[in-house]
Amino acid sequence: MTSHVLAADIGGTKLAAALIAEDGSVLRRKEVPTPAAPPGGSEVVSDALTRLLREMTGDAPPVAVSVASAGPLDPRAGTVSPVNIPAWRDFPVLARVSEVVPGVPVRLIGDAVAAAAGEHWRGAGRGSDSMLGIVVSTGIGGGLVLGGAPFTGPTGNAGHIGHVVVDPGGARCPCGATGCVETIASGPSMVRWAHAHGWTGADARDLAEAARTGDTTAVAAFHRAAAALASGIVAVAALCDLDQVVIGGGVAGAGDVLFTPLRDAVAARAHMAFIRRLRIAPAALGRDAGLVGAARMALPA
Amino acid sequence: MTSHVLAADIGGTKLAAALIAEDGSVLRRKEVPTPAAPPGGSEVVSDALTRLLREMTGDAPPVAVSVASAGPLDPRAGTVSPVNIPAWRDFPVLARVSEVVPGVPVRLIGDAVAAAAGEHWRGAGRGSDSMLGIVVSTGIGGGLVLGGAPFTGPTGNAGHIGHVVVDPGGARCPCGATGCVETIASGPSMVRWAHAHGWTGADARDLAEAARTGDTTAVAAFHRAAAALASGIVAVAALCDLDQVVIGGGVAGAGDVLFTPLRDAVAARAHMAFIRRLRIAPAALGRDAGLVGAARMALPA
Repeated sequence: MTSHVLAADIGGTKLAAALIAEDGSVLRRKEVPTPAAPPGGSEVVSDALTRLLREMTGDAPPVAVSVASAGPLDPRAGTVSPVNIPAWRDFPVLARVSEVVPGVPVRLIGDAVAAAAGEHWRGAGRGSDSMLGIVVSTGIGGGLVLGGAPFTGPTGNAGHIGHVVVDPGGARCPCGATGCVETIASGPSMVRWAHAHGWTGADARDLAEAARTGDTTAVAAFHRAAAALASGIVAVAALCDLDQVVIGGGVAGAGDVLFTPLRDAVAARAHMAFIRRLRIAPAALGRDAGLVGAARMALPA
Repeated sequence: MTSHVLAADIGGTKLAAALIAEDGSVLRRKEVPTPAAPPGGSEVVSDALTRLLREMTGDAPPVAVSVASAGPLDPRAGTVSPVNIPAWRDFPVLARVSEVVPGVPVRLIGDAVAAAAGEHWRGAGRGSDSMLGIVVSTGIGGGLVLGGAPFTGPTGNAGHIGHVVVDPGGARCPCGATGCVETIASGPSMVRWAHAHGWTGADARDLAEAARTGDTTAVAAFHRAAAALASGIVAVAALCDLDQVVIGGGVAGAGDVLFTPLRDAVAARAHMAFIRRLRIAPAALGRDAGLVGAARMALPA
């Protein structure tokens, strides 16, 4: 087996792990549902992660271990407190991983940054100098690739496009602000708005299907989300001189019902010449993006 | 004379040039008013720049020449089209500079990025990992220092905080969008708002003086500008994981009447924990920031 990185991707819904080769190919991969565990039940989740990592380790040790996790997290302390894993608060995930794979460098990265790095390395963002990756699902995460390299920021928190305010008079966000991109364009936010306007389906997947068949409220919900995302994207483009945006996550799986109004809304807001070159593409790596990107960030530049 | 960089700073009001030593000290410096010249009169301006550069050159040739300029500009083509210098449209400023100082590497940088780099190197942003520099005067410019190094973006246009939209229902901006930070917080925008609300002074300097003496409308104008700047700053902080903001330019010279409401407005909007460490400081280098920063960016890292 070629030299490889052991990567993990920790989220509120699933735990995934993979062996990733130096060229980005996925040599082995497995995921399991994240066990439900109350506050205090941290071992239930960490035992599941430990089992998963043990199943991944091959004959040769990995050159590094790289953990992508839902936030908040503290990459320097190696601890995570994922909003949707209440059993883990300041949980020392890197220390736990080091017990499974001792003697190997370990690294902790925000999951949206890892996904952006993966799409930039092997997915829809290849060749970009200045890229924003967005994950639109239950929440909205983001990651930047600047000057061709993932930009984590000093505390590991760069890329928070979900909490850029685009409607100052809008709805309260769990983060404490009002009118964040996430309050309009996340899956649950879109469904909530559609319900308030008479739509009766169950979830964001149904909403996309309804939009595809021309349901007026569903189409309007996607246009509204597209406008919010476009405002955030244009702000990031003005600040970071972006040439590429890559959008993944469950809501992005809706396809043209999201991307067509989104491209129109960005074009309508992209007044400065340097922003007009911006390309917007759906993510290409699906559920592997975070694993592949985490591996990339653990390899030498 | 120690080895040094010849730096120029080109704006609509003044042309400045300096010799800057490798430690950032200013060895020689001069500025002249930017000559008024109509479209087509490019030589009037470039002759003034040429004379200024010749006066700066010493016995030893500089190791590099670095030109900071008002935008728009194209660093790769070496051309500038400053909004407030109508005589220069796609003017090949680097080619002209090379005629004055042949055989030396030349570099072109946006003036707000150069000012941010200067404040980071020798001014109020020293030691920051992730800094936004803002210049608040007739317009609002910005520059980023990320991972401790100036970030220009692939086209040289990164840092455009003046055109982040903070009031989507607000006033039309010359850039074509509505509600940009610049439409609220630039000097002329503040004065325009104050006039519409009964204040009768002349300019932003008068407005600051009126605010210091407690004039209700002037104080409100600064609070309104502070709120717009704070919204933009918090968005950049969420995206770039900022630890420092440095604000210069004529309006920033107002001091506490701007900085006190600005710090309050940022604190009120900084909901995510990693943003709360953000420091906001007035610029320390005054009119030298752009020259010093341009020199820094021409020296080896």
